[in-house]
This record gives sequence, C-alpha cells and structure tokens, in this order.
Amino acid sequence: MYDIAIIGGGPGGYELAINAYNQGLSVLLIEQDKLGGVCLNSGCIPTKTLYQAASIYSMNGSAYGITCNNKIDYSKTIEYKDKIVFDLRKSIESSLKGIDLVSGVGDIIDKNHVQVNDNIYETKYIVIATGSKVIKIPGFEDDLYSYDILNLKELPKKLAIIGGGVIGIEMASIFSKLGVEVTVIEMSDRIIPNFDRDISKRLHSYLKNDNINFYLNSVAIKVKDKLIVKNDKGQFDIEYDKILVCVGRRANLSINNLDKLGIQYNNQGIIVDDNFRTSIRNIFAIGDVIGKNMLAHYAIYSGKQVLNTILAKEEQIDFGVVPSCVFSFPEVSMVGLSEVFLADKNIDYKVIKHLYRANGKAQAMNETDGYIKLLIKDDLIIGCSIIGYSSSILIHEVAIFIEQKIKISEIKNIIHAHPTLSELISEAIKDI
Amino acid sequence: MYDIAIIGGGPGGYELAINAYNQGLSVLLIEQDKLGGVCLNSGCIPTKTLYQAASIYSMNGSAYGITCNNKIDYSKTIEYKDKIVFDLRKSIESSLKGIDLVSGVGDIIDKNHVQVNDNIYETKYIVIATGSKVIKIPGFEDDLYSYDILNLKELPKKLAIIGGGVIGIEMASIFSKLGVEVTVIEMSDRIIPNFDRDISKRLHSYLKNDNINFYLNSVAIKVKDKLIVKNDKGQFDIEYDKILVCVGRRANLSINNLDKLGIQYNNQGIIVDDNFRTSIRNIFAIGDVIGKNMLAHYAIYSGKQVLNTILAKEEQIDFGVVPSCVFSFPEVSMVGLSEVFLADKNIDYKVIKHLYRANGKAQAMNETDGYIKLLIKDDLIIGCSIIGYSSSILIHEVAIFIEQKIKISEIKNIIHAHPTLSELISEAIKDI
Repeated sequence: MYDIAIIGGGPGGYELAINAYNQGLSVLLIEQDKLGGVCLNSGCIPTKTLYQAASIYSMNGSAYGITCNNKIDYSKTIEYKDKIVFDLRKSIESSLKGIDLVSGVGDIIDKNHVQVNDNIYETKYIVIATGSKVIKIPGFEDDLYSYDILNLKELPKKLAIIGGGVIGIEMASIFSKLGVEVTVIEMSDRIIPNFDRDISKRLHSYLKNDNINFYLNSVAIKVKDKLIVKNDKGQFDIEYDKILVCVGRRANLSINNLDKLGIQYNNQGIIVDDNFRTSIRNIFAIGDVIGKNMLAHYAIYSGKQVLNTILAKEEQIDFGVVPSCVFSFPEVSMVGLSEVFLADKNIDYKVIKHLYRANGKAQAMNETDGYIKLLIKDDLIIGCSIIGYSSSILIHEVAIFIEQKIKISEIKNIIHAHPTLSELISEAIKDI
Repeated sequence: MYDIAIIGGGPGGYELAINAYNQGLSVLLIEQDKLGGVCLNSGCIPTKTLYQAASIYSMNGSAYGITCNNKIDYSKTIEYKDKIVFDLRKSIESSLKGIDLVSGVGDIIDKNHVQVNDNIYETKYIVIATGSKVIKIPGFEDDLYSYDILNLKELPKKLAIIGGGVIGIEMASIFSKLGVEVTVIEMSDRIIPNFDRDISKRLHSYLKNDNINFYLNSVAIKVKDKLIVKNDKGQFDIEYDKILVCVGRRANLSINNLDKLGIQYNNQGIIVDDNFRTSIRNIFAIGDVIGKNMLAHYAIYSGKQVLNTILAKEEQIDFGVVPSCVFSFPEVSMVGLSEVFLADKNIDYKVIKHLYRANGKAQAMNETDGYIKLLIKDDLIIGCSIIGYSSSILIHEVAIFIEQKIKISEIKNIIHAHPTLSELISEAIKDI
C-alpha cells in the first residue's frame, strides 16, 4: 500500500512526488507520456529557450554604435531546445529515486485503488494531476497548436496566430523577433485579457511598433484554404504560410469513473476546496485539471498544500499571491489583486505608476520601455503589474511585500542598490 | 536662514536635497563641479552604459544556432554614454525646483554658516556630502584613473589594470568583452576581496576563462615606461598600451576648518554616529566622506536617515542590510553578514549553495554559470552572495528576507513563478 499515488508527471505531479518522498511517504507516480508534462515538453521551457534565441537574434546595439549582423540556423535552435528539454527531463528522472514511477494511463478504481495497464495499486491518498489539453477549434483541426509549432524545423514566412492570450502573445513575440511576419487575431477587445487593461494596451502598442499585425474584436474562419478575419469593419483575407491556434486550454478530465466515484467537477475542471481536496476526502486534484489558474507554479504550490494537508501541517499557502508572467518583448508580470477585482468588490485604492525611463540602470541599458503600476490601499501594496525588462524577476520582490503585508513606510527603509532595476520599486513608492 | 545646507551634489546630497524639500524644509545645495557626483558622471552610470555595450557586443548565440558578427564604433559608444549621463543630469536639475543650488566650493564657517565663493549663508543644519577621491599611486600619476578611461575615444589594445577590487574588476570585465587584452594586478590573494571568498574565486576562474590575465599577491611598479609586476615567483614585464589604476578611493576631507570646528575624523573619514551625526550636533556627514561603505545607495539612504533624525522621526534604516553588486560577467551581488564576520564573532551558521545550472530558466537562457550561496542561522537567512546572471536584481528579494527577518519556513510558502530566475531562491531553500 502506497501512502500517495499521483496521476500525472507534470510539474504539479513530479514536484509533489519528490516532496512527499522527502517527507517519508511512499509514492507512486503515474505518467502516460513524458515526465515534465506540458510545461517542460511543450510549454514553458521550450518557449523560454526560443525566447532567448529570439532575444539574441534580434539584439539591436545601434544606440551603442554596435552593428549586429546576426544569422540564424533555425534547425540548430530547435536542436538546442530539444537538448535543454531532454537534459531537464533526465534531471527530473534522476531526482525521482525512491519513487515508483509507472508508465501508462492511470485510472482510479475506487478511493483506495488506482490501475495502470493491468496492475492495481493500493494507496491511502490519490492526487489527480492530469493537467490540461489544448482546445481545438472546428475548421482548424489540421493547423498548428502550441506543441506543433515548437517542433517546426523551419521558420514560416508568414504566421497567423488565432488567440491573443498569454500563449498566443508569447509565440507572436518570439516568431516576430525571429523575422517571421506575424498576425494575431483575438476575439476580445484587447490582448492578454486576464492582465491589467493599461498594461495590455501598452504591450499592444509596443508589439504593433515591432511589426506584429493585430485584429482585435475579430473572429477567424477558414473557407477552404483561405483564412478570413471578420470584424465590424468587414472581412479580410489573411496571408499565411502557417496558422497557429492558441485559443486556450481545458482541464484534462480523461480519468475514468469520475462520476461513479462521486468526484465532483464542472466544465472548468475538478472541484476542490482550499486544500485541493475533491469531494472524496482522500482524493486531491492539483494544477490545470482544476481549471482555475493554469500555471506550472500554481500546480507546484497546490501540490505543496496537498502535502501540508496530508501531513496535518497548519501552514497555508496564500493562493491570492500568484505571480504571473508573459515572456513578450518586453516582459509583462503581475501579482496580487487586479483593478477589475477591486472595482467589482467596490474597494477603494490608489494607483501609482513609475516609468522605466526614470530609472538610471534602465537608461544605461537602453531598456526604457515600460512601467511599474502599483495598486495601493492604506499603507499596503495590494496589486502590481509590471511591463518592462526583467519584470519576471522584479515582480517577486513585490509579491513578498504583498504576501507578507509589509507596509510601504517600511519598504521605504529597505536599501536598494544603485544602479539597479530593483530601484524601480523603491522609486515608485518614494513620494507616497 | 536655511533649514539645511548640503555640501556636495552627488547621489547622497541631491537625493537628500529633494527629500528634505518635499518634507517642507528650505534647502541650500552646494556643488563645486557637476551635479550627480562621481556616481553619475564618472562612476556607476557610465560604467553600466559601457557594461551594456560590452554585453551586446560580446553576445554569443552559437548554442542557439545564431552567428553574431558584431562590429563596434567605440566613439559612438562613448557619445551614447555621454548622452545618457547628460540626460540624467538634466533630469536631476529639473527635480531640484524650489531648492537653492549654488555652484562653487562649500566651506563651513561655523556651525550655522556656510560659505560659497563670497557669499555666506545661515543654516540650521549642515550636511557634509563631499564624497571621495581616487587614490593616486607614485609613479602612476600620469596613467589613467577610472574617470579618464571612461572618456577614451578609442579602445586600447592592451590594458593593464592595477587593482582587482570592484572598480578594477568591472573595468576589466567591460574592456575584455569589448575585445581588449586585459591584465589585472592585485596585491591581495584574491580579486574583489570584500566579497565572499568562494564567490571571488569563482569569479576569478570565470574571468580567466574569458581571457583576462591575473597576477595576484603581486605589486606593480614602473621603471621608466616599463610596467613590472613583482611577486614571489619573480618579476615580469607586462605589455600594455594603457595602464588603469583602480587601487581605491579615499574620503574627500577637503572641507576647510574641520579641526577648528571640532569635527572629528580619522584617516578613514569623518566620524559619525548611527544617525550620521558628526561630533557637532547639527552637522551631519553622509556617503563616501565617512569612508565606511562607498556605495551610492549607502549615501542615499544615509541621507534619508539624516532627514529622519532632523524631523525627529523614529524610523531607523537597517545599515546592516546593504546590497552590493559587481557588474562583471556574470554579475556578483551580496547582502547581509559575511562568513568572515561570522567566524570573527564565533557565530554558528549553515551554508546552502544552489547552482544556476539547476534552474530551468537559466538553462533555457544558457546562463548557467554561477550559484546562490545562503548563510543560515536557525530559521533565518542572515547573509547571501550570488554570482550569476541578473544577481543584481535577485539579491533584493533576499535583502527583504534578511531585513524583515522572514522565516525560511514562511519563504517556502511564497509562490515563485515558473520558469523564472527568481526560483533560484525558492529552489535553494527547498530542502532545508
């Protein structure tokens, strides 16, 4: 009998497996495909590798009197991306020592038994970490989805991307910087609609200046091989070599017997409480399969919270403070409460904006696009969005201020090194 | 009568001037040369501009299949550096509205009067913020010092740098990446001797691999035009086009009448208490002139503490938590207590090291050189050194943990976004 059986070896699953084993539990980890899940194999890691390639390839040193005349052999870029993914997968494998890893589809037989292939395993706890699947749209079944485009060996000339959410925008940013002519078609009135409205507008204008074409409030349809965009201005033929569809992901509810077992779910995903417990007391669900916040670190930390619960630790992770990043050029990051939420709840707040342009290090780096936006209530920061260079690192300092409820009057006394981008935060609150 | 007269318009002086004015005080600011001091005009900002140029120029994309064939017109680099400095100086000037700025040498007549040129001004408080001067060494009076080299219009072929402290190492890093053959001669047994010993050794080996030549435990002398290095292995002729001397800086005690006024000082600088008060109650000294910690942000925050004191605010800035950064390739940063200090005080501690190589984002970026080193006592981080990409930003998160005494058990529950370099910190403490 295992202490814990985990179905799904993505970041939620494998991190929980390691943590549980380190806490002395016996662990069964079931993965039907490759360890590391979407994040490692066809998500975060491969895109960040291509992002770095795009960043190097598009480097512009003209302000400094430097002429860059870069050439790219994209097949080598993809080889390198595959190597990084392979290496990281090996390193996950080697960190699973002591954990029973089984390859196959995991099914739940009853609340204390899981089945893989023909074997049945007894377990005290079960954790469903089956992740999510891309949403396919009719007429575009044969086009590229995020995992396909990461394996193209050649760059397309013209890429049409359906969907201007985080994944669509990251892909648009990367391929545009790699010299591809990119068009993004988005149904809503702005890109990255889950982010701050000002920030999404600012990013939109940066990306437009960077030669990405946008159709907002628009629908894409295919008529034979023609890609047609419809909006209230009419309908337009879009030239393309490849179409990439990024309209979102959906919880992977392919586990058998959910109904028979009485595990409640809705069209978003499996329903869980604050400790990620399903309607069956010893069965938990973490990560994308609950459909709340489809981020690798949300999965990882929800796994930690499950372990806290199983081990009867009182610690409670604050899932109101989940940083979220878009690796566009420049990066966008946010954490804490949003203006939409605050308006909805009728909560008063102040807004502070501070420009990268006002920061000495940003000036020296010629990385002056962007700003930090703080939402403030009383003497506390309650929300933050940053668009600008290295925002994916900077956001973590603000996350701590929010999570630890550190007063602004105290933050002012924390010494920030000069000249660094971190001063953006101390500069922003200076005159409050 | 002014509330406060500040002698010296470097970062310590001008920031204090602005803060004091914003708090309703009448302010006289005296600067004998250019606003912004060494930091803006011949220190932090120009070097960080050249650092970025060096970073772009030396960009290597080969792992990603990218061939960089960069060319540099260095005179344009210097023009751009001058433009950045000029722009930032203008922006300081424009933020001094309402503050009386006087150009000239400031002297203290008595505890309530300062003199500039022929004018005498009455004031309640005086702040000495006269900064520091480079230390010149005999025989090398006509060679380059840090301010000279920043104004060279052409790159030398061979640069010999005397002194392997922070400034020497930043210069060596920049000019080496710009294609200059660099030799560093350092008296002590390691470079950046004020930093962690392991980190300084690691940096040494990275820089050596990057083709910088080093002579440690060595003394440089000049015999006619020959540069000779002596150490216990013998003496060596060093080929050079230019010699840069970076053997340190010394408090600028050029203020008249220090003795007559009874302001105590020693060979380090002006002696102050925890609130930066000199031996005369209404006269303060901040920044390099006290000779303790010659960092722009130390000057800035010491000015804040002076203002707290003048305004009788109880806030006390923690000057035990001053982050310090070296912009080498890769960057080095530290904050909090050092192993030398802990050994000296006989304090027990644990060391945790975590490699950049183990971080997914670092892998994706091909920035895997370096590590984070944490000094831990009980459940607290008490010191940290980081060598690696973006360490100058990352160090600030750790600075908050130290300053706010946030327990490691709590830090584990603060969600870090994946994949980001910030995870280096959460990864490092994972198994404690």
